[in-house]
Amino acid sequence: MIKQRLFTPGPTDVPPEVLNAMAQPMFHHRTQRFRDMFARVGAALQEILMTGNDLLTIAGSGTAGMEAAIACAVPRDKKVLVADGGKFGERWVKVAKRYGLDVDAVKLEWGTGLQADVVADKLAGGDYGAVVTVHSETSTATACDLQAIAKVVAATDAILIADCITSAAALPLRTDEWGVDIVATGSQKALMLPPGLAFLSVSDKAWAAIDTIDAPCLYLDLKAYRKSLAKNDTPYTAPVSLIRGAEVAFDMINAVGIETVWHRTACLAQATRAGCEALGMAVFSSQPSDSVTAIYLPEGVTDKQFRDTLRNRYGCSVAGGQDELKDKVIRVSHMGYVDPIDTLGLIGAIEHTLVACGVTVEIGTGPAAAAKALADWR
Amino acid sequence: MIKQRLFTPGPTDVPPEVLNAMAQPMFHHRTQRFRDMFARVGAALQEILMTGNDLLTIAGSGTAGMEAAIACAVPRDKKVLVADGGKFGERWVKVAKRYGLDVDAVKLEWGTGLQADVVADKLAGGDYGAVVTVHSETSTATACDLQAIAKVVAATDAILIADCITSAAALPLRTDEWGVDIVATGSQKALMLPPGLAFLSVSDKAWAAIDTIDAPCLYLDLKAYRKSLAKNDTPYTAPVSLIRGAEVAFDMINAVGIETVWHRTACLAQATRAGCEALGMAVFSSQPSDSVTAIYLPEGVTDKQFRDTLRNRYGCSVAGGQDELKDKVIRVSHMGYVDPIDTLGLIGAIEHTLVACGVTVEIGTGPAAAAKALADWR
Repeated sequence: MIKQRLFTPGPTDVPPEVLNAMAQPMFHHRTQRFRDMFARVGAALQEILMTGNDLLTIAGSGTAGMEAAIACAVPRDKKVLVADGGKFGERWVKVAKRYGLDVDAVKLEWGTGLQADVVADKLAGGDYGAVVTVHSETSTATACDLQAIAKVVAATDAILIADCITSAAALPLRTDEWGVDIVATGSQKALMLPPGLAFLSVSDKAWAAIDTIDAPCLYLDLKAYRKSLAKNDTPYTAPVSLIRGAEVAFDMINAVGIETVWHRTACLAQATRAGCEALGMAVFSSQPSDSVTAIYLPEGVTDKQFRDTLRNRYGCSVAGGQDELKDKVIRVSHMGYVDPIDTLGLIGAIEHTLVACGVTVEIGTGPAAAAKALADWR
Repeated sequence: MIKQRLFTPGPTDVPPEVLNAMAQPMFHHRTQRFRDMFARVGAALQEILMTGNDLLTIAGSGTAGMEAAIACAVPRDKKVLVADGGKFGERWVKVAKRYGLDVDAVKLEWGTGLQADVVADKLAGGDYGAVVTVHSETSTATACDLQAIAKVVAATDAILIADCITSAAALPLRTDEWGVDIVATGSQKALMLPPGLAFLSVSDKAWAAIDTIDAPCLYLDLKAYRKSLAKNDTPYTAPVSLIRGAEVAFDMINAVGIETVWHRTACLAQATRAGCEALGMAVFSSQPSDSVTAIYLPEGVTDKQFRDTLRNRYGCSVAGGQDELKDKVIRVSHMGYVDPIDTLGLIGAIEHTLVACGVTVEIGTGPAAAAKALADWR
């Protein structure tokens, strides 16, 4: 029996403290006890997201959160700019089109992020109501400069909707300081929870837009969530156990401090890249995200052989590539409940797996390089 | 420290076996292990719902499931009949209107269920694409005769969408034999799970309707769930821990046998009614649901005093009334993980609470009457 560890970019491993909290007896959500807990959870997540904006909680996946934002906050008489640099960018284009919005999809080469000057040019040349971008695009392990993009958008009447599903609590994200109108995230990434919750922070500027729109849906109608939030409540039945887990997870994050968490995540990403490069594996992406790293498989090593060996022999699950990266890369998460020991161990396991796949490497090279990169850990 | 028991009509208490399963380490959802589990869970729920129809699983509350059905399955060129006999009926009218559907809302007196002959008259006199009804209306603790309604609808081109959120695994429900096209249910009622999952069974007749409609949404687009289901998968990240809990809960239900579960639920409902009536408390509703019982508070007893005493002194949480029943009734659930011991104890606690609230009752009257009604338990 070997210990199983998830290095997949969501779901990620959940701390036993959180799992234990979720295993406690149920209680009812229409109670003062729930409202008190819900208020604490919201405040803790505001601290993590560095925002004083309304913080909404939806029972659903991250997709539900992003769809709610796009369906409810994009003015119907204006265009919406959507950055499409990977699978999730593609999805938000699809969502926007599903609601009949006038979508200007900016197709980006995989491994590159949306550039602020492109946004500035677009917004100067047309009547846009919103910009939708993916802060950390998981399919390509690529980040964009959200701060720079926010600066451009904040100077206009448009609102910025950011998919921070794999960036919140992983990459630097100063919601209010940068002026990100809607931050959407999900439970099962750096927030150290099982899947099932989407979170949205919504600025006054975004609410002003939302208030002009008749929501085309009910379950994802943000106005209903705002109304309930005023009473520290949810419009539909809240996933009590997940919110209970969230209380524990968010307290764990805030005890460390969000800026330290960002630093640690970056450390693990650097160690992983250094370790793999020392083993001759190249990193994909021109703007790598510290949430998740994509690494090319060596010539002649199949994805199946590599990932099966890594999982079956060493208990390490990593993700494969998608679409154009399918069978070409593996993707390793650095989010949430993962530490230097795990990361160093993974590099050791990757090294042995390469040998098992017939690649010549000197055992010890990878962990040595990774260990060096971890010197900055604090 | 007194033991806390939920008699609220959702969430209900969750068996420790289920909570324990959910507290096990996370694993990734894009794996064969997940797909195997998901297939087992789907088959187990088909057995519970007595259906061979496609069984879809959505991360969201029961409202998300019903909204998905109404948004995706009601033909746009026809009317939709919606039964409105309580808070949930009201909600489905609202959902249907939100999507711009041509809604014929049948307003029912609270405490009565939709009648099959009303449906027959309506369908004969207009061009209806769908009928939406609530099998067990939780706000009024009232059931309708779903079998009779299904018989009427099945003889027409319309489809039947049933809100079985508090009836599935509680009231007799023979989906295929009766011909219910869409059964929508949720995790946190008789299915003995925390909130967070909506389930839908979808007949071929319903799929034929769905296939003619361009889904106006993405997250709740049933076609995406069908496509993924063919691979025992979900289109968006699945709540792994909840589905893991579902496997244990559904196996517990099927080990008893669904018909026995219905019988047991009815037994508990009868015992509760008998116990309360013996204490001079009248039951609300002309067609009481066995999922949940609404009982009038005695003259002069306030909802707050009664429910606070019941919870603080005896650890029993029951729900209050809503809207026109506010402060007038309490609502007691008989769904899921509740047994004769709990029910008998609750009647005893109600009895003592009445005394604490200044009502004259002979101690022992309630439990004695309830115990008699439990003779049929098996």
